[in-house]
Amino acid sequence: MKAVRLTEIGKPLQEMEVPIPSIGDGDVLVRIKAAGICHSDVHYWEGIAATGPLPQTLGHEVAGVIEKIGVNVTSHAIGQRVCLHYLITCGDCSHCRSSNEQFCEDGLMLGKDIDGGHAEYTVVPARNAVLLPDAISFEHGAIMMCSSATVFHALRKGRFRAGETVAVFGAGGLGMSAIQLARIFGALDVYAVDIQAERLELAKTFDAIPVNAADGDPVREIRDRTGGRGVDVALALVGSPDSMRQAIQSLAPRGRAVLVGLTDRHLAVDTYREILGREAEIIGCSDHLLEELPLLLGYAEQGRLDLTRIVTETIPLDGETVNGAIQRLQQFGAGVRTVITP
Amino acid sequence: MKAVRLTEIGKPLQEMEVPIPSIGDGDVLVRIKAAGICHSDVHYWEGIAATGPLPQTLGHEVAGVIEKIGVNVTSHAIGQRVCLHYLITCGDCSHCRSSNEQFCEDGLMLGKDIDGGHAEYTVVPARNAVLLPDAISFEHGAIMMCSSATVFHALRKGRFRAGETVAVFGAGGLGMSAIQLARIFGALDVYAVDIQAERLELAKTFDAIPVNAADGDPVREIRDRTGGRGVDVALALVGSPDSMRQAIQSLAPRGRAVLVGLTDRHLAVDTYREILGREAEIIGCSDHLLEELPLLLGYAEQGRLDLTRIVTETIPLDGETVNGAIQRLQQFGAGVRTVITP
Amino acid sequence: MKAVRLTEIGKPLQEMEVPIPSIGDGDVLVRIKAAGICHSDVHYWEGIAATGPLPQTLGHEVAGVIEKIGVNVTSHAIGQRVCLHYLITCGDCSHCRSSNEQFCEDGLMLGKDIDGGHAEYTVVPARNAVLLPDAISFEHGAIMMCSSATVFHALRKGRFRAGETVAVFGAGGLGMSAIQLARIFGALDVYAVDIQAERLELAKTFDAIPVNAADGDPVREIRDRTGGRGVDVALALVGSPDSMRQAIQSLAPRGRAVLVGLTDRHLAVDTYREILGREAEIIGCSDHLLEELPLLLGYAEQGRLDLTRIVTETIPLDGETVNGAIQRLQQFGAGVRTVITP
Amino acid sequence: MKAVRLTEIGKPLQEMEVPIPSIGDGDVLVRIKAAGICHSDVHYWEGIAATGPLPQTLGHEVAGVIEKIGVNVTSHAIGQRVCLHYLITCGDCSHCRSSNEQFCEDGLMLGKDIDGGHAEYTVVPARNAVLLPDAISFEHGAIMMCSSATVFHALRKGRFRAGETVAVFGAGGLGMSAIQLARIFGALDVYAVDIQAERLELAKTFDAIPVNAADGDPVREIRDRTGGRGVDVALALVGSPDSMRQAIQSLAPRGRAVLVGLTDRHLAVDTYREILGREAEIIGCSDHLLEELPLLLGYAEQGRLDLTRIVTETIPLDGETVNGAIQRLQQFGAGVRTVITP
Repeated sequence: MKAVRLTEIGKPLQEMEVPIPSIGDGDVLVRIKAAGICHSDVHYWEGIAATGPLPQTLGHEVAGVIEKIGVNVTSHAIGQRVCLHYLITCGDCSHCRSSNEQFCEDGLMLGKDIDGGHAEYTVVPARNAVLLPDAISFEHGAIMMCSSATVFHALRKGRFRAGETVAVFGAGGLGMSAIQLARIFGALDVYAVDIQAERLELAKTFDAIPVNAADGDPVREIRDRTGGRGVDVALALVGSPDSMRQAIQSLAPRGRAVLVGLTDRHLAVDTYREILGREAEIIGCSDHLLEELPLLLGYAEQGRLDLTRIVTETIPLDGETVNGAIQRLQQFGAGVRTVITP
Repeated sequence: MKAVRLTEIGKPLQEMEVPIPSIGDGDVLVRIKAAGICHSDVHYWEGIAATGPLPQTLGHEVAGVIEKIGVNVTSHAIGQRVCLHYLITCGDCSHCRSSNEQFCEDGLMLGKDIDGGHAEYTVVPARNAVLLPDAISFEHGAIMMCSSATVFHALRKGRFRAGETVAVFGAGGLGMSAIQLARIFGALDVYAVDIQAERLELAKTFDAIPVNAADGDPVREIRDRTGGRGVDVALALVGSPDSMRQAIQSLAPRGRAVLVGLTDRHLAVDTYREILGREAEIIGCSDHLLEELPLLLGYAEQGRLDLTRIVTETIPLDGETVNGAIQRLQQFGAGVRTVITP
Repeated sequence: MKAVRLTEIGKPLQEMEVPIPSIGDGDVLVRIKAAGICHSDVHYWEGIAATGPLPQTLGHEVAGVIEKIGVNVTSHAIGQRVCLHYLITCGDCSHCRSSNEQFCEDGLMLGKDIDGGHAEYTVVPARNAVLLPDAISFEHGAIMMCSSATVFHALRKGRFRAGETVAVFGAGGLGMSAIQLARIFGALDVYAVDIQAERLELAKTFDAIPVNAADGDPVREIRDRTGGRGVDVALALVGSPDSMRQAIQSLAPRGRAVLVGLTDRHLAVDTYREILGREAEIIGCSDHLLEELPLLLGYAEQGRLDLTRIVTETIPLDGETVNGAIQRLQQFGAGVRTVITP
Repeated sequence: MKAVRLTEIGKPLQEMEVPIPSIGDGDVLVRIKAAGICHSDVHYWEGIAATGPLPQTLGHEVAGVIEKIGVNVTSHAIGQRVCLHYLITCGDCSHCRSSNEQFCEDGLMLGKDIDGGHAEYTVVPARNAVLLPDAISFEHGAIMMCSSATVFHALRKGRFRAGETVAVFGAGGLGMSAIQLARIFGALDVYAVDIQAERLELAKTFDAIPVNAADGDPVREIRDRTGGRGVDVALALVGSPDSMRQAIQSLAPRGRAVLVGLTDRHLAVDTYREILGREAEIIGCSDHLLEELPLLLGYAEQGRLDLTRIVTETIPLDGETVNGAIQRLQQFGAGVRTVITP
């Protein structure tokens, strides 16, 4: 089969012919129909985040059709449309058995630790293949497995409760899902903070209140618009300490800032004014959970979560085209969401 | 009546004669039997934290006997032993009505914003006077209103759950209550972190596992003793960014660090390794709630919360003696807990 | 002013001229623009539920305009549009101060214990007057204070969480709000159970899945449609032990049935099969909270909660007309929602 | 090996020689050191509750030493002291993966659905074998797996929170653990309700307040002793609708009654007075969770949970003796706790 693989850090990905992966007794073989290119893939390509031994097929946002099932698999059938939970875990440790599988010490990430979706086929344990309703396209199913799922989990980590207000710092791919999900969960007001006007325009179509951080201090603007009170939950989706701190500073009494974006720079906070005085909380968010995915798909199936304007480009599984997409992503930020459709 | 008052920042407190305060229709007049000297009093004296207009009578840890009641007071009676909730709030705003009175915008603190307990009498609204069971001394009742109450609230903010493990950073007055309360709430193991050996000895008598931070890295020691896992809840009682950060670094997956100690220096954290990777939480804690006080007194009445070895000294209401106590507290930390017994 | 009052149990209400009520220092006088006739009013009229001493002006679903304010009122102004929280509480007891004001022992209900809204004016403490946004009509504001608020509270009592499924037993006035609120809070599927086809048709327009209990066993139908699993939250809005039990029997593992409807007949349950085996929960719901009302109004202001088709009739404040409405309500159930607009 | 087995409903158990069970790749073979006789065993013997096909070795409270491990077992070693989680589940379904394994549809109960502990050896999956600290005897470890674990789970289901009050209806084997655990979790007051004076005497030694239901109405007595308020959590451990209803009637506002005892008679409640008016909750409790067991053993290891006076008799693995114990249990209730020590 064809695969586009990372063979050397920082060098163009290589299109190559590799064997179709063999399946274990509890696995399913999936013919890939859509595989997103995520900003994390750029990090792997740049060597900022480590992958398994090279060469490695990237791609952790994957949807397709089951082509083969292991002898012990009774939960799935050939021909089913599925999208893939990218975290492959032991299923037996205390973390796995208490719905905290992201802490499984034997966990492997599809498209990072093991070969992923930038190929014609991939293999996962059957339980990682989540049924994809007919109403949802493969492209949408694929990217839901990463960006939508992460912010779904973040809202849960933030103990968001219907009737509260939310600020989303970073109105890119994750942010657009976050805005919609906050509304689906019953947020009264959702603020979208970004520096790109066109993103804020899109955010408005999802009923967000735009806050342009390029035009002034977003913290002040949020305080002004909330009568000085601040927001109950702030999602810090941008991997920047400055943006994270603004999220914290925007909180109401007992507000919660959920950190999602990655950065290797330190975050500095004024504990007295920003944390203690308001009993504010800073909450880390890591990945998401298998059990959250069917709910997400349910909202999308009902048309309440709409990714149409998030997937801006589909490209073939072709080395040159994929390399081009990676480069554009590196240079222009997450303004586009490109999905490979082999 | 006699009062020892702050008349000028940094200058010795002045013993003076002032009128017995008059009471409003809903107030009670309390003849003071015990009033603690808290580290915060040193901050007020030094001008690090602001008080109301000077001269000001300090003292927010107060217990005594009701000597007079306002005409509308039906909930209390003359002669009752009481200890005082130091936060006087409006009772009518959304914060007050939802058990979040520490955010009341009209809140005033006894012994900081209005005259407090370093005197023969004080006045508070009747609802701020909590009945003190006969089994509890005035001295214990007084200091329970601040140090014990704060850490009680901190354990609640940390969403501590029976069966979890706790690390208490700072084994002073607050810490000794924290250790005992963590055990009362069902903590399996409680680690006490401090740099003073004698404090750690005392902590051991309350079944804490001592961790001497002067001897090595307390984070490493806690990880070693918990099989690498870390603790579920860490209370950062010391107003030092270094100690706060150690508390955060000691957390298990999904652990919560509750910040209690005050500092004006910034806290810097590695969000990726210390927060996101473990889904750790940093939670601010501010004051405590009136509704928490009767529970605290209940534990003390049953002998489960023991402050005998925390109150190390009682002194008369005398200007010179009080000034001496303030100076010792400033120089030697919170190793002693001095209570004025007029 | 004119008032339509209950003077004798079971006898027609009397239209009479009474003085405009005087206001206390913390009260507001409200010129009534809309006052709903609730099924509870029928109970008071029939003597099934007790009121304060007769004669008594009924009406606890009230909206209007502030015409006068007490000398101490700073939070409200003459001319403001308001709707009224019908439970008047002390504000100072432990229940009131912990957002559980429905248990206040001094609580009085407007239109039951004290004169209510079937008149030209009424008086309440300022804090009971909630600002009514311009976008919401007086009629809608009025009935939101009872039926919508009750089911809002019920969903909270049921610890409903986004992504769960809900069954609403009883698709009348309360039910229509419940269906909409469950969706607003992120319910994936909402089942509406009733025996009247036209109600189920209306429920469908709010995206509910209709279950006609007149056509067969609703428990079986809900189980069939949920793959045998049942629902996470069932709201038992009908005051009938049979309907309550169906709600309980429809639950999924760890499901919660919230009892809202009133009945004086006992509910019998098979604890082993219906409660223990599924770890099901039966949760009582009583009234609602002042702090919930602004959220509700927020949803209505944004057009997400729509009461247009719930208010089916407005009538003048006229003795004969009001008596007619009471009688129709007694005979035909809650199929109509009549609002008096003086 | 020797086993005492149920061969026919209602007939004496038969002592017989059977093969030592063989182990699968993930299993451990345990030489039994202690196996309790539970009241449920009487139910199986009487045919009230169904077992797997006869003959069947009963006994679900089991502790012993690992004698052999399957080829894939890395988590355990030969010679380890263990006690056994009696519920053997698939580990892979949504229930198992979210810490709700008691709802696993493939779950099998040791000593009920498959051969259990009234024998010299038994086999379980490795993950069901929980390490038993040296400080805990096999007898205590065995019965902790059922009675202590059940009430531990019940207190969690009841959302018990430190500072609340608890009433335990039924001061037998489960009750004695419940009383101790409620105190370990920070209960202020614990009421023990029973009709046997000697049980209440024992309960007092665990700091419970005794309420003799044979002497009068326990509901009235609890109300009197709590100033009319009632208790926050009531555990209904007795399989009697009357006792369950008393538990419900004893609740404070927002109190929770957790049903644990089994009965095939219906429970009838006055929903208006007993449930809605207080927003009371009735919560079903089923079994307990593997993840709860290490915590329980931790408390016992620290001497905070003491079962010394609960195990009243140890007997040899001998058919006649075991039958005698079963009969005494049937006739005299759970006043004795007999453990077989082969």
